[in-house]
Amino acid sequence: MSRTLISGGLVVTAADEVLADVLIEDEKVVAVTAPGFGATADTVIDATGMYVVPGGVDAHTHMQMPFGGTTAADTFETGTRAAAWGGTTTIVDFAIQQAAASREDGRAGSLREGLDTWHAKADGNCAIDYAFHMIMADVNESSLKEMEALVGEGVTSFKLFMAYPGVFYSDDGRILRALQKGAETGGLVMMHAENGIAIDVLVEQALAKGHTDPRYHGEVRHQLLEAEATHRAIKLAQVAGAPIYIVHLSAAQALAEVTRARDEGFNAFAETCPQYLFLSTDDLARPGFEGAKYVCSTPLRPKEHQAALWRGLRTDDLSVVSTDHCPFCFKGQKDMGLGDFSKIPNGLPGVETRMDLLHQGVVEGHISRRRWIEIASATPARMFGLYPRKGTIAPGSDADIVVYDPTATQVHSASTHHMAVDYSCYEGRETTGKVRTVLSRGRVIVDGGQYRGSAGDGQFLRRDTCQYLR
Amino acid sequence: MSRTLISGGLVVTAADEVLADVLIEDEKVVAVTAPGFGATADTVIDATGMYVVPGGVDAHTHMQMPFGGTTAADTFETGTRAAAWGGTTTIVDFAIQQAAASREDGRAGSLREGLDTWHAKADGNCAIDYAFHMIMADVNESSLKEMEALVGEGVTSFKLFMAYPGVFYSDDGRILRALQKGAETGGLVMMHAENGIAIDVLVEQALAKGHTDPRYHGEVRHQLLEAEATHRAIKLAQVAGAPIYIVHLSAAQALAEVTRARDEGFNAFAETCPQYLFLSTDDLARPGFEGAKYVCSTPLRPKEHQAALWRGLRTDDLSVVSTDHCPFCFKGQKDMGLGDFSKIPNGLPGVETRMDLLHQGVVEGHISRRRWIEIASATPARMFGLYPRKGTIAPGSDADIVVYDPTATQVHSASTHHMAVDYSCYEGRETTGKVRTVLSRGRVIVDGGQYRGSAGDGQFLRRDTCQYLR
Amino acid sequence: MSRTLISGGLVVTAADEVLADVLIEDEKVVAVTAPGFGATADTVIDATGMYVVPGGVDAHTHMQMPFGGTTAADTFETGTRAAAWGGTTTIVDFAIQQAAASREDGRAGSLREGLDTWHAKADGNCAIDYAFHMIMADVNESSLKEMEALVGEGVTSFKLFMAYPGVFYSDDGRILRALQKGAETGGLVMMHAENGIAIDVLVEQALAKGHTDPRYHGEVRHQLLEAEATHRAIKLAQVAGAPIYIVHLSAAQALAEVTRARDEGFNAFAETCPQYLFLSTDDLARPGFEGAKYVCSTPLRPKEHQAALWRGLRTDDLSVVSTDHCPFCFKGQKDMGLGDFSKIPNGLPGVETRMDLLHQGVVEGHISRRRWIEIASATPARMFGLYPRKGTIAPGSDADIVVYDPTATQVHSASTHHMAVDYSCYEGRETTGKVRTVLSRGRVIVDGGQYRGSAGDGQFLRRDTCQYLR
Amino acid sequence: MSRTLISGGLVVTAADEVLADVLIEDEKVVAVTAPGFGATADTVIDATGMYVVPGGVDAHTHMQMPFGGTTAADTFETGTRAAAWGGTTTIVDFAIQQAAASREDGRAGSLREGLDTWHAKADGNCAIDYAFHMIMADVNESSLKEMEALVGEGVTSFKLFMAYPGVFYSDDGRILRALQKGAETGGLVMMHAENGIAIDVLVEQALAKGHTDPRYHGEVRHQLLEAEATHRAIKLAQVAGAPIYIVHLSAAQALAEVTRARDEGFNAFAETCPQYLFLSTDDLARPGFEGAKYVCSTPLRPKEHQAALWRGLRTDDLSVVSTDHCPFCFKGQKDMGLGDFSKIPNGLPGVETRMDLLHQGVVEGHISRRRWIEIASATPARMFGLYPRKGTIAPGSDADIVVYDPTATQVHSASTHHMAVDYSCYEGRETTGKVRTVLSRGRVIVDGGQYRGSAGDGQFLRRDTCQYLR
Repeated sequence: MSRTLISGGLVVTAADEVLADVLIEDEKVVAVTAPGFGATADTVIDATGMYVVPGGVDAHTHMQMPFGGTTAADTFETGTRAAAWGGTTTIVDFAIQQAAASREDGRAGSLREGLDTWHAKADGNCAIDYAFHMIMADVNESSLKEMEALVGEGVTSFKLFMAYPGVFYSDDGRILRALQKGAETGGLVMMHAENGIAIDVLVEQALAKGHTDPRYHGEVRHQLLEAEATHRAIKLAQVAGAPIYIVHLSAAQALAEVTRARDEGFNAFAETCPQYLFLSTDDLARPGFEGAKYVCSTPLRPKEHQAALWRGLRTDDLSVVSTDHCPFCFKGQKDMGLGDFSKIPNGLPGVETRMDLLHQGVVEGHISRRRWIEIASATPARMFGLYPRKGTIAPGSDADIVVYDPTATQVHSASTHHMAVDYSCYEGRETTGKVRTVLSRGRVIVDGGQYRGSAGDGQFLRRDTCQYLR
Repeated sequence: MSRTLISGGLVVTAADEVLADVLIEDEKVVAVTAPGFGATADTVIDATGMYVVPGGVDAHTHMQMPFGGTTAADTFETGTRAAAWGGTTTIVDFAIQQAAASREDGRAGSLREGLDTWHAKADGNCAIDYAFHMIMADVNESSLKEMEALVGEGVTSFKLFMAYPGVFYSDDGRILRALQKGAETGGLVMMHAENGIAIDVLVEQALAKGHTDPRYHGEVRHQLLEAEATHRAIKLAQVAGAPIYIVHLSAAQALAEVTRARDEGFNAFAETCPQYLFLSTDDLARPGFEGAKYVCSTPLRPKEHQAALWRGLRTDDLSVVSTDHCPFCFKGQKDMGLGDFSKIPNGLPGVETRMDLLHQGVVEGHISRRRWIEIASATPARMFGLYPRKGTIAPGSDADIVVYDPTATQVHSASTHHMAVDYSCYEGRETTGKVRTVLSRGRVIVDGGQYRGSAGDGQFLRRDTCQYLR
Repeated sequence: MSRTLISGGLVVTAADEVLADVLIEDEKVVAVTAPGFGATADTVIDATGMYVVPGGVDAHTHMQMPFGGTTAADTFETGTRAAAWGGTTTIVDFAIQQAAASREDGRAGSLREGLDTWHAKADGNCAIDYAFHMIMADVNESSLKEMEALVGEGVTSFKLFMAYPGVFYSDDGRILRALQKGAETGGLVMMHAENGIAIDVLVEQALAKGHTDPRYHGEVRHQLLEAEATHRAIKLAQVAGAPIYIVHLSAAQALAEVTRARDEGFNAFAETCPQYLFLSTDDLARPGFEGAKYVCSTPLRPKEHQAALWRGLRTDDLSVVSTDHCPFCFKGQKDMGLGDFSKIPNGLPGVETRMDLLHQGVVEGHISRRRWIEIASATPARMFGLYPRKGTIAPGSDADIVVYDPTATQVHSASTHHMAVDYSCYEGRETTGKVRTVLSRGRVIVDGGQYRGSAGDGQFLRRDTCQYLR
Repeated sequence: MSRTLISGGLVVTAADEVLADVLIEDEKVVAVTAPGFGATADTVIDATGMYVVPGGVDAHTHMQMPFGGTTAADTFETGTRAAAWGGTTTIVDFAIQQAAASREDGRAGSLREGLDTWHAKADGNCAIDYAFHMIMADVNESSLKEMEALVGEGVTSFKLFMAYPGVFYSDDGRILRALQKGAETGGLVMMHAENGIAIDVLVEQALAKGHTDPRYHGEVRHQLLEAEATHRAIKLAQVAGAPIYIVHLSAAQALAEVTRARDEGFNAFAETCPQYLFLSTDDLARPGFEGAKYVCSTPLRPKEHQAALWRGLRTDDLSVVSTDHCPFCFKGQKDMGLGDFSKIPNGLPGVETRMDLLHQGVVEGHISRRRWIEIASATPARMFGLYPRKGTIAPGSDADIVVYDPTATQVHSASTHHMAVDYSCYEGRETTGKVRTVLSRGRVIVDGGQYRGSAGDGQFLRRDTCQYLR
């Protein structure tokens, strides 16, 4: 048995801020004590002046995901290592049921096949613990039945798309059926809420007019079409008697729909992402093809939406901040869409920078320290059935802990980050606060600028069902 | 030249209530004068103690419409005659583009063919003037192009369906394109706003559970699925920069969506129908198969929705009351759905009773006299480009005038009504107020319990575009 | 008997726009006929190319009103003449119950005394017809009893103040009692809705900080304190079961409160004024003491409120546009507040420019022609019990008619206006549309740039109770 | 040094639920450890099968408070002992500035005098720790200045009244000044939000009509007058830039105002009380004079408000549940109002039953266990500057801990409760869950049905300013 003591830091969880020592035995926290309580340990990590926080839980990543003829640049190995560098110790990635369109036999794959494929990609490669959601590309009798089995083996959330007709798109009948099955099994439906059918019309019309630059990506994916789909998803969930979780919400009007539903006491949840808090259509409209770096869906919105999103995080109408990490290199990938914005692979790098950017939100007064941990660790853990194993520092929880230096500064850059992608969305931007030490299940994997873990450290997590309902 | 004077009545229009004489030359009103002004006339109609009101404009009827393997029981001849009996002097019926599914060649018909068919049905048969909306069963390049031509010949409104997949259903992309074309041409898009894709799932599940009675018709067509579709239609219209008109709104939650949009100053309009104001799910749940008489879509709602609808009429969030007249006989038609509510032809008789039921709303204090005329005559005329020819009593307007006895009572019954259908939704109900005399373009067609017109009196009306935008 | 025919114009009322002739006998309209109907007349006014509209009804003026040690510059003679020049043929002015503070005996006067005083001021001096509201400076047993009598003699509306403590201010108990009495008698309570108690604190604090310029008038009369008072007035009215009419609403947030109440079907009404539609805090902040010209209460608001107010006019959440005409000369009156904004007499000139500025709203696309007449003539007439005598052109209505040239332009200036005040709020501003001829009860009083009436033409109007409830 | 170990229970805090041992040294928690971690202790409390929760914080009590010529029946001694019996280990009571009306010299007392008086009442008598809010009966230059000093000595919240004119009532100007001073000093303004001026009119009218029974207490204190005052308080706070805390909210419409403000991100907070969650106007209307037992202000509301309040607790629009404990005996006190409801002393007993009733809310599915602790302990501690000393179980926090048996049942009755009042509002009602052991700063004061503490155990708590702002 190995014992580690993290001493003298300010332990910040979603609920509490206390000066305390944290004692770890092997992989678990066994005690949180008054400073200097005198627990003996093999290793003592001095955290004086530091925050001691639960490792981040990023509930939305896409490692080595195939998209539009290419594959997201980060593998499970590089992506989870970058996550660790950034203070994130758990990711929930998306296994994908193969869509009919992408198979030779013209029939959609099973959830099982998809899950197996993703297990194979991740197994033995991850730096940190990981879990899976399941993307349902085809809701049918058979895949509905599989949902129950997957919930039983710890894959307890299912993502559907109102966007991407012909690929991942589900119509409202399929969505309703999946929501009903979710209500029955405890599986939580996650929704990409954009009206893809209407968007495709606008895409076609834009291209016909010669509007091919990246910034048109933001225009055709109209904010009202996000609001529309968000409202629709909520109403379908209400008909099904199921909770719903809206992914990567970016438009103020979509947030307003979530707020309305939550005011009525309905279990509607939403996440946003750091890019929507820190970037805007100004970035999409950067000269030349530069804007392609900022193409993701839902798209970046005009700057004034940022204040609404921060307010939503304060009022808990936005409950989680994930990254939707899905990086494509500017050279060789993003440039597939030169001359046609609709061919630019959708996605941004972000798994490494989430904790720091949200801490910057603390520094700038948008949120409190406790709320930082709540939206970045505790609530995602609860929402996706990982609590209290992940997301807090308490006796019995996994010793996934970050010693965070709240006053150190850093300048973000592709030249220094650890994600396998050739640009940074925040190139040159300085933020305050920096990860010093990261423990994953009791082992130090990052410390003082050194990566000390290895591929395969991370284990697959069987998740419980959503623990966040009210 | 023939001159008629209607003397001594209270002339009620949407705006004014004045004791005045109305002078008619041939087909037109030529003067509204102080009582006893002394205009000479060939015929004098004494309206002392009566209301003199513009004839009703029923903007939503389906005469001899094919539906689900049968045809609505009223022909243009019987239906328009019944309308006249009830004080309605103009109808706007729906010509239908044939859907692909109902044609041998598997391709949708053209708008032109549909319109021609309906012209043929109506021509020479109508008791009162009539116009057409166009139902678009297939929005495609060709039918979009036809919209412009039809606007040019006075068919200036186009109905789309979010319900009835496989029949009239349009997906959101088609809806968006039609709305865009509406914005371009002035054609007003009318929407049947129910999420038919989701409803079909609930229908299938209900039947699978053995829930086959008429009352399940009300349950599967869930009120939230009307609210959802209403919101979606409005958002699509906002994206297109087009006004929108929601037909036969019945759910309080759908009304709330219209209210929200109108508060923001957006040109969203909605009609409701007398059946939603006077009937409820209690009728749908009548014992035996009796409920089938009350099967229409959108369905009747629980009683408490009625107050919300009356309030909407007072606040102008509901602008129009039409009938959605589409009668099917209980024997021989409605009974097609014995043992399977989904096979009951959707529709109710109503064209004859609208003016009286709304006057009953005046008697019961729900609305004012002027508002009665506004929602039953003036606004539908304005909304659909018939004003001031129809919908008011003013120099130059058609002399479509009803002399209405506000104190006479009547008992509604299939045994006395003039619609070609074997039941009344209001059998045995007594209301106060009754049509005494009806003039259509200056000719008396109903008077003192006698029908004095003949088939073919009514002419086709070329309509202008919507005059009601703000 | 004298007969006048106004021929060939476009007769625009709140409801209709028809090319028609208007026949007048003595003081009344006796017929509206098709053009060229052939009525014979002593005088024919050719209105070809002109609008023929009901004369304006300005429901909020303060002629020769004492305020803060001075008196509004327009007498009933000069003010009503200026009104006529501007196309307004009826005003409703405010008779004032003397407040205790302004009397030697320290006791408030009676309503009767106040009304008598105002009758004496107006009698024999007015160019156009006039009526009175009553300002209640002291709601007590005796003045509550008087309300009933006043309603009986045609003074059917009563203004209370939530502002101006120590002068006109009524506390919430007095307001509630007056509202209850209003519900009982049909008297309509009008409310100056600003939280005067809180404002006085901010005034004192501003002056203590040396913030003495006119622009601080706008800051201390905080928009949220208008919203607050508006909400409070509505809630008190709901408790009393009475309708309420909010005067001179200027803040978007106050409008939102009215909208909320109206959405619920409650009889809450509000007026705004042209100054809130065309001027802003930018004017209040003009250099030097120039801003004093724009000091009125409620104050001008930041420019972005204008769009909200126009939208409110379109959606009928604002029902009336009055002027709150209460002019003070820049020299000798406004300058009483040099060095202390709180001593600037509150009020602006406006009775002459209302119809033109609102027509400018038509020209700029904010409202339709019919809505112009509705908010400027028809609704104020209905709201205050003058309809259909005033506010429309119909058989039996007073022949208060304006022949309006929709294409003529004019430049506003103190050097050309007819109000007895030394500045114009719109100096140098060009608008399109201009009064050509004005008839008051059948007599031409303004025509082709000549004033042809005389003092005393105007008569006192006994009003009915509010006809606008729903 | 004494060491106590609470072992084997489920430690429930606002954030976490973990099976853990809690180690106490003297008055403080020093460690929370994995079960069986092996800490040695002098005393071991076996909590197997029990909840181990932070002691309740009741932020709203009125021990031995003078009201309407009598005094609340519980002294600090009896009241705090009853609190302990019910699992509450901290109260925040209200010290009162004497109103001018209640003093011979006709001048309001100072805050200091009021505070000293209350210190004298409580000192040496309390069973548990206590703190004070300050009721400001007269906001003036001098009392505003005192606010700052009081914040410095740990009295960091100030209650104002919009009700009770002539006693505690403050007008809006005084409220605004106090809010401004609150913004400046960090003192949190708490508001009794009812429009007392309007209510007094309704009281007078009700009594004049002979409506003297207790149930009229509920009618005159109209729910819209609570909504009105709540909105007003929030708007004044927004003008002042200060947070605000609404006490004892009972009406759904008032809650809607709080929700609106919170949706906008404003720091508006509200508490409700168990009586509004479990009792209703049905109780006020009990036959005879029985209703007097249920007279409190704000009053009980119709039953349907309860669902809205529970929903508000789930959505965090209601942040705290306090008791407003202010008991008057039915015999000898409540009966002062026989024949005149307005003379019934306002207040109910409740300090002993709060934790149990809220746990019943858990049992009935209204809230989760963690939310129970959040609204009853953690949030009140945070809101009033006692966190993390009170309201949680963490190293360094006071060992105010309750061992709670979640399955034991009890029947509420005046014959068994410990409050010094002759009736129970919940007489005969059975609830599930019961306090077993209570520790106050490490000492067991209640255990197994025995009270083991003594008067004077409890200490005065100097509070920090509100820690709950976002």
